Amino acid sequence: MQKHTLSDLPLPCPVARSLDVFGEWWSLLIVRDAFRGARRFEDFRALGAADNILSARLKKLVDEGVFEKRALSPTSKRYEYVLTEKGRDLMPVLAAIRMWGERWTKGKDATRLSHGTTGHPVSVKAWCTECDREIPVDDISVQRPQQARAAI
Amino acid sequence: MQKHTLSDLPLPCPVARSLDVFGEWWSLLIVRDAFRGARRFEDFRALGAADNILSARLKKLVDEGVFEKRALSPTSKRYEYVLTEKGRDLMPVLAAIRMWGERWTKGKDATRLSHGTTGHPVSVKAWCTECDREIPVDDISVQRPQQARAAI
Repeated sequence: MQKHTLSDLPLPCPVARSLDVFGEWWSLLIVRDAFRGARRFEDFRALGAADNILSARLKKLVDEGVFEKRALSPTSKRYEYVLTEKGRDLMPVLAAIRMWGERWTKGKDATRLSHGTTGHPVSVKAWCTECDREIPVDDISVQRPQQARAAI
Repeated sequence: MQKHTLSDLPLPCPVARSLDVFGEWWSLLIVRDAFRGARRFEDFRALGAADNILSARLKKLVDEGVFEKRALSPTSKRYEYVLTEKGRDLMPVLAAIRMWGERWTKGKDATRLSHGTTGHPVSVKAWCTECDREIPVDDISVQRPQQARAAI
């Protein structure tokens, strides 16, 4: 299947642009494994992707600034992949996907998200920054910017 | 590229299973457009996907229970696609992706998320359900369940 650049679509938005960065098959699972502690190519192999796919996805994520590729030593030809701030900022995306999957899919779970080392579970809330309170899912509307301005 | 079922991977988790449902190219943008009010096949065409891809993705999302396909009238052969509770529950995923895209990508934005009709912007917060407070991104850890249990 030929892939387009989603940013060029008729309805540009940050969702489409974000999917250009990490919306490919495997990419979010690579980021998930980095949060689990994977750093070297061998670590990411645990994911089960073919080496050529893994290599291409890691390169793309480095090019996009999600990972920084660092030599293991000044003379080494071996590298590790470390999440940048941009990459670590994908945690709420993963947490939101996880929360949905916990509610709507069934199966085993090799890991869980935890608040620091407390073991407390992590959820995700939609939040109104002006009212400073949680917004129920059905009370979020999608507007064109001019509608939103008119409503203020 | 051959696609696997991510649920069968060596490290099963709700993220992988969720990506099995909506992780394909276009699927989340179809859901995004449904939140914008798209219901009929023609409405989803605004997305810019080829008809055969759009049709296949809608069918998959109906099969997965994200959309309900309803005849426009008892005698009609025309249909509309309405988000189910399972589908509407994807809003936090879209909101989290949007928040990341607003921070880390540049470009135009045809829509925005709003708290009801107030025009207030929507953000997403990672939340500790036991401490009942927001968790900074860098204070979320990914643990194997037995580690988490040991820490409680």
